Amino acid sequence: MTEKYVYKFFSKAISEGKAEMKPLLGGKGANLAEMTNLGLPVPPGYVVTTQACLHFLANNDSYPEGLEEQIELAQQGLENSAGKKLGDENDPLLVSVRSGSVISMPGMMDTVLNLGLTDSSVEGLAKVSEDPRFAYDSYRRFIYMYADVVKGVSKTFFEKELKKLKEELGVESDTEVPAEELKKLVQKYKEIYKEHLGEDFPQDPRVQLSDAVKAVFKSWNNKRAIDYRNHQGISHDLGTAVNIMIMVYGNLGETSATGVAFSRNPSDGSKGIYGEYLINAQGEDVVAGIRTPVPVANLKDEMPPLYNELVEISGNLETRYRDMQDMEFTIQQGKLYMLQTRNGKRTGIAASQIAYDLVNEGVITKEEAIMRITPSDVENALFPSIDWQQINANAPIKQIKHELSDKLLGSGLAAGAAAATGLAIFDADRAEEVAKQNKDVILVRVETNPSDFHGMAASNGILTMKGGLTSHAAIVARQIGKACIVGSEKGGISIDVEKNELYAKGITIKEGDWITVDGDDGSIYAGKLPTRPANLPDSMNIILDWCDETAKIGVKANADKPDQFIKALEFGAKGIGLCRTEHMFFDNLDLVRGMILAKTDEERKHYVDQLEPVQEEDFRGIFDVSKGYPVIIRLIDPPLHEFLPSEEELMTEIFEAKLAGKKDDDFKETADMLDVVREMKEQNPMLGLRGCRLGITMPIVTEMQARAIFKATAKVIKSGKEVLPEVMVPLVGFQKEFEHQRTIIDRIAKEVMQEESIEFKYLVGTMIEVPRAALTSSEIAGGEQGAQFFSFGTNDLHQMTLGFSRDDAGPFISKYVEQGIIKDDPFVSIEETGVGRLMEICVEDGKTANPEIELGICGEQGGDPQSIDFCYRIGLDYVSCSPFRVPIARLAAARATLSNK
Amino acid sequence: MTEKYVYKFFSKAISEGKAEMKPLLGGKGANLAEMTNLGLPVPPGYVVTTQACLHFLANNDSYPEGLEEQIELAQQGLENSAGKKLGDENDPLLVSVRSGSVISMPGMMDTVLNLGLTDSSVEGLAKVSEDPRFAYDSYRRFIYMYADVVKGVSKTFFEKELKKLKEELGVESDTEVPAEELKKLVQKYKEIYKEHLGEDFPQDPRVQLSDAVKAVFKSWNNKRAIDYRNHQGISHDLGTAVNIMIMVYGNLGETSATGVAFSRNPSDGSKGIYGEYLINAQGEDVVAGIRTPVPVANLKDEMPPLYNELVEISGNLETRYRDMQDMEFTIQQGKLYMLQTRNGKRTGIAASQIAYDLVNEGVITKEEAIMRITPSDVENALFPSIDWQQINANAPIKQIKHELSDKLLGSGLAAGAAAATGLAIFDADRAEEVAKQNKDVILVRVETNPSDFHGMAASNGILTMKGGLTSHAAIVARQIGKACIVGSEKGGISIDVEKNELYAKGITIKEGDWITVDGDDGSIYAGKLPTRPANLPDSMNIILDWCDETAKIGVKANADKPDQFIKALEFGAKGIGLCRTEHMFFDNLDLVRGMILAKTDEERKHYVDQLEPVQEEDFRGIFDVSKGYPVIIRLIDPPLHEFLPSEEELMTEIFEAKLAGKKDDDFKETADMLDVVREMKEQNPMLGLRGCRLGITMPIVTEMQARAIFKATAKVIKSGKEVLPEVMVPLVGFQKEFEHQRTIIDRIAKEVMQEESIEFKYLVGTMIEVPRAALTSSEIAGGEQGAQFFSFGTNDLHQMTLGFSRDDAGPFISKYVEQGIIKDDPFVSIEETGVGRLMEICVEDGKTANPEIELGICGEQGGDPQSIDFCYRIGLDYVSCSPFRVPIARLAAARATLSNK
Repeated sequence: MTEKYVYKFFSKAISEGKAEMKPLLGGKGANLAEMTNLGLPVPPGYVVTTQACLHFLANNDSYPEGLEEQIELAQQGLENSAGKKLGDENDPLLVSVRSGSVISMPGMMDTVLNLGLTDSSVEGLAKVSEDPRFAYDSYRRFIYMYADVVKGVSKTFFEKELKKLKEELGVESDTEVPAEELKKLVQKYKEIYKEHLGEDFPQDPRVQLSDAVKAVFKSWNNKRAIDYRNHQGISHDLGTAVNIMIMVYGNLGETSATGVAFSRNPSDGSKGIYGEYLINAQGEDVVAGIRTPVPVANLKDEMPPLYNELVEISGNLETRYRDMQDMEFTIQQGKLYMLQTRNGKRTGIAASQIAYDLVNEGVITKEEAIMRITPSDVENALFPSIDWQQINANAPIKQIKHELSDKLLGSGLAAGAAAATGLAIFDADRAEEVAKQNKDVILVRVETNPSDFHGMAASNGILTMKGGLTSHAAIVARQIGKACIVGSEKGGISIDVEKNELYAKGITIKEGDWITVDGDDGSIYAGKLPTRPANLPDSMNIILDWCDETAKIGVKANADKPDQFIKALEFGAKGIGLCRTEHMFFDNLDLVRGMILAKTDEERKHYVDQLEPVQEEDFRGIFDVSKGYPVIIRLIDPPLHEFLPSEEELMTEIFEAKLAGKKDDDFKETADMLDVVREMKEQNPMLGLRGCRLGITMPIVTEMQARAIFKATAKVIKSGKEVLPEVMVPLVGFQKEFEHQRTIIDRIAKEVMQEESIEFKYLVGTMIEVPRAALTSSEIAGGEQGAQFFSFGTNDLHQMTLGFSRDDAGPFISKYVEQGIIKDDPFVSIEETGVGRLMEICVEDGKTANPEIELGICGEQGGDPQSIDFCYRIGLDYVSCSPFRVPIARLAAARATLSNK
Repeated sequence: MTEKYVYKFFSKAISEGKAEMKPLLGGKGANLAEMTNLGLPVPPGYVVTTQACLHFLANNDSYPEGLEEQIELAQQGLENSAGKKLGDENDPLLVSVRSGSVISMPGMMDTVLNLGLTDSSVEGLAKVSEDPRFAYDSYRRFIYMYADVVKGVSKTFFEKELKKLKEELGVESDTEVPAEELKKLVQKYKEIYKEHLGEDFPQDPRVQLSDAVKAVFKSWNNKRAIDYRNHQGISHDLGTAVNIMIMVYGNLGETSATGVAFSRNPSDGSKGIYGEYLINAQGEDVVAGIRTPVPVANLKDEMPPLYNELVEISGNLETRYRDMQDMEFTIQQGKLYMLQTRNGKRTGIAASQIAYDLVNEGVITKEEAIMRITPSDVENALFPSIDWQQINANAPIKQIKHELSDKLLGSGLAAGAAAATGLAIFDADRAEEVAKQNKDVILVRVETNPSDFHGMAASNGILTMKGGLTSHAAIVARQIGKACIVGSEKGGISIDVEKNELYAKGITIKEGDWITVDGDDGSIYAGKLPTRPANLPDSMNIILDWCDETAKIGVKANADKPDQFIKALEFGAKGIGLCRTEHMFFDNLDLVRGMILAKTDEERKHYVDQLEPVQEEDFRGIFDVSKGYPVIIRLIDPPLHEFLPSEEELMTEIFEAKLAGKKDDDFKETADMLDVVREMKEQNPMLGLRGCRLGITMPIVTEMQARAIFKATAKVIKSGKEVLPEVMVPLVGFQKEFEHQRTIIDRIAKEVMQEESIEFKYLVGTMIEVPRAALTSSEIAGGEQGAQFFSFGTNDLHQMTLGFSRDDAGPFISKYVEQGIIKDDPFVSIEETGVGRLMEICVEDGKTANPEIELGICGEQGGDPQSIDFCYRIGLDYVSCSPFRVPIARLAAARATLSNK
């Protein structure tokens, strides 16, 4: 027996498919069958399966055995059930032939409408519809669609003729062209067809049908479909089904209409049917945007029974599909037909509202609700966005963007989903100054560095010319929740920092001019666009609480200052996974430089002693707001020359002094500093004297930091609060390094407990960022003096394992992604095959050596859903990320737990 | 039954030990027992075992059960067999108590001589010896040795008294002090003893004996012994044995003597007894160096029967020990006694000669011969060395060095064992110039860079102020076989490059002054010391051939130029494991800069096309001398900015032009170059745009290099020679990177074969230097397009896996080694726990994916014996190293094979 390749959906009684058969029937076909099963008014038709398509494509474009017969049988059945025949010269049956793949690929594959029209049947259609204009217009459309889709003759040849005709007639709209002229145009179209193909337009509807089916099959492998699948990561092995369905028309007068409806509001998730329709129109007309559709609600007044019918259908479909539906319908002369239904796309806010409501309605479980929301839903709700509705409530966003194209300056890489509008300011100090006047500011820089922080914090958004998604600007912006677009130089934008001007497309933006940045797609606009404030709706907060109950991997935050920690706790973080102590050093540069330049141990101690109370105060600030959650503090990490001026800066200063005729003595200090800077210069600072190497070569610094941490701990505990400090030793590669530092830390802890007459708990652990540490984790975690926790510093771990310097790899990483050498920028998601394997080795060995060890991640990837899934799979206890990514991480943690069940 | 702790060697009949019992009896004790077994004239005695020592030390300084009784029994037996008793007032027995550990620790532990003397027995000794002076002198020595060793009273208190006495008597030598005065001195010594210890000097010889044994036990844990063991890597768990033996005296007149003899010449390995002795002297006198010993050959004339006896004993011992012996002997009034024998230390040249002779004599196997020679034996023979014998044929080297101390300028790190002498020259060009006048040159620089190469090649040796064992100077020197001492700034030496002067210890060396560098210990001397030329003796070459037959891991060389390759082949390399193509780029800087700065593909092609014939010529040169051995050529690797001037250089040039009042136009080119250099500047160049990332972003360079390689291949094959090129893609981290490059290489190979109408074999493989490559080797080696060979680039692999930048890690690596955080500089030997584990993972997975894959190493560690052993253990097929390390590697390869059997 041959395989069954054709599934009929003629009526509730004769319906062979169902929703669950999506892989075989495609999304559209399965849902048409399902609607037929439910007794809904679907125009009868049948589906040719994806399996038929795959066979066809794999066998030199030939049908599998039995397919031709099965199609013929179904077609005859369809004609019998409709009481009409394809090509009938009195009352012809017309069908549509549409593609329908398992995963929606909108607009990527081909469709043929009005199939069955011939020179004789068009007359029958004219007669039956009593509308010759409609008949010839349909025939005209069919010919050029067929020529284009089935035979590959470009539409433009046909469109040119129509345009010429309209010009001759002096009319603007197609509908103004009378029937007689359309009849002539059909003649012309057939001539063009013959001219290009050397054959007449086929007058046998069975040939039309067979060729149309094959064309749809082939369209699975057209270039744009392949590109789309590559881009979206959809498998090329799925194939498309073909849906053959009786044509219905929404353009047969005032009792006809066509429209789209959602079972709930896709913008905010509120209940009730929502959508729009056009009277006397075809689907194409809605898309073309020439006429403005009206809200579906209007139907209630205009065609009350049909409205009620649609509402009932919407309810039935939601019950069946247990989710909000996106439906296409057509009303043909007073009768409603359902042409498609599917789970509807929605905004982040709507997604959470709908999921929450469906749980309350008893339709879905909490776990299903969690899986219904995506990390980008949370991200979208979490940040301000452009308020497109305020610009034009009725137009689709695409259209509004198109209309704004003269204001579009260019684009860059969006470091987050946030949008912002403000005055362009090119300097951090000035940005802070302007912001203090209660003005909105966008800080525009070539790139940012730690000294720009105050300006970034004061601005609504940041725009940089250089850098990638893991540049300083991007990281800080995510941490403090600002809109940020980086690397926009490549998107056509340049600035002159001396003139305080931005240039793009011949437009000049001066200091104080409004600009808007859209984190959704990285666009940068001249002028002020309205924005909608950030809003994590109640429904989402509730679902995030469900996430916490579900997730088997915790979420902490990377926060260096109390305000960041407070924000993180509000967002649901359960502690700090990484508190960097560098900023405290940057805030006291004079002392730090004194410490670095000290020539004797005594001199060094002098400066270190002064740093201690400053650090202690900083740690107190953090512990004070910690609510008893653990706080992981990382000892100083960066190379010391980061605290000194740059060689270039100093050389320039000296040469300028010389040019100005100054004597050597006048710039001796600068010259001395230059000597030190040159002496400390490193070829590859990332692999130089930093991390615990500092604490080992200068133990006094570790002692000072440990003392500050434990004294702050003692004081905050005495104030009646709970504190759990965890001291993290950075850049450990050898067990002895860790032991060396832990010995100091334990000794200081003991001393402070004695001095303060108090007992407190604390942990000592290490970052895993040097590949050797991952490879020897059993040594580092083992024994009495072993690490009590590991936190994967995935930034450095990636840099060293891949041999990519994050600061330098940008140029070739982008080429690598383009050429398909790597799939994604590895600094965004954990590179699982190589780095991931190393992490697995580390986890396995570390747990064997110390089953109690606490395992986490604090690199940038800690807030990335794909990476969180990986972290869950290899058995980490928590992830730590920027405060503003905490809600996203909470969702991702729960989703990882559920999807790996 | 209690354990046996005491082993007697009274006579051939009563001898309980043997040579094989070294772990229990210590080296000295086991060999004394063995000599007794052989019937040789050994003063009778007994050994207390190392087990007794360990028990004593582990149990609060208390004897194990039964030890006291066993010693008493042995002592009684010794007295019976000698017919004398300890402390006898008529004819007392005297014994020595000496330490003796398993592994020789010369001078580290304690010895007590003349034990058994008391106020009464000294009279007996005076009587029997008929030499009161000898008796009181012996007693005096015993008291202070006992006070020092057993009771911890410093010798100086006693020495002071002797000195005072000699001054009072107006004599210079001890021997001039008459018996009566010595008797008084003994009295004085006993007073000092009592004064310091509050007790009388013990008059019970059994107490003396027991305390002396305990003191020797304890000396195992004295500070200098512990330090020595730490330094030499000797286990602290071995313990020392104690040897109690009847005293014999070489200072009882003209028929007495004491000396040292070797069974063969330890300098050149020639056959025949060799050594020196002193008539009427004690061992101490030989060490003190007051009198000059005479060659053992003299004994032939002076005491012919004893000479013959010694020769016979020497032969017997060699037969027994199957190796050259180092023997101590004493002649007491015409009777020969053997006090010690052990395998003798020897020079590298002697080691090979002796091993070779012993094989020919049928004493040892070839495999044993291989294991008898150490890598440093080969290294010493391979390079010129200071000819100490020419300076003073009779003094030990230590003494000669001591005498040269006023010429010693300081020291640095020796990059190899070679020594060299020459005129100090501070500039590479000048060095070349002076060398052309047939003068010997030592090039002295702060540090070297590639532009100094010609000067280094022209000099006998190189001395640098900065840099470590893997600095440019050190690597190049090893590659071209020059003496080289680096980092001597820390050893007290500084230079002024403008004045062409070197300063150390107040001495100034000017250009053209003679200096000498000794690679053996890193010393730098003012003046010219004689050197002995390099000489790989025939015996060593033959043994190295045996090594090749034995070794299961091959040896190739790292060579960039034909002359290096020729040298490597002479030294026995079986091909090139790494031919870097960078120098060819450095030799054509204008073309390379044109290529880098090109603004269009066309412009770039213009320069690349000109580079191709240059490269082809270079490869032809190498293939021409390759003798059909495989040649692995690495595609260009360094970051491109290495080919451009430095930012500092350009900034200085511009500022100086400005200072000189020049206009912007006058230095526009420099300013433009500065812009480019700044644009290309990388934070961490090691992890930036280099290696295959260059070939992927600029495929034209890979195409050009592949074409040059294959065209050269075709031409050399046509000239009738065999060629096997292997193209190595550097810095691969992802399978797709390799595939990308291999696709180009394969295509070019095909094209060249067609163009040249020839077929040739070639391989394409990759370096494994990025940790990710090691972790994903199954992907990289797998499939049709997989790598055909892997070569571990252990330099970069260590840098990335440990997070150590070789250029920057020097300062903390030395602190790490000092503090015991790491054992050795990981750039010298493979760090096995971490990097080694990664290599093992790589080898295992790579072999699984491609069982045919060829595996090797080409990093600096490829010439390090410890690393070669590791490479053998993990299953590599070959190591590749500098030409001058090839003989060392051949030996190490064979030793690795044998010792891991």
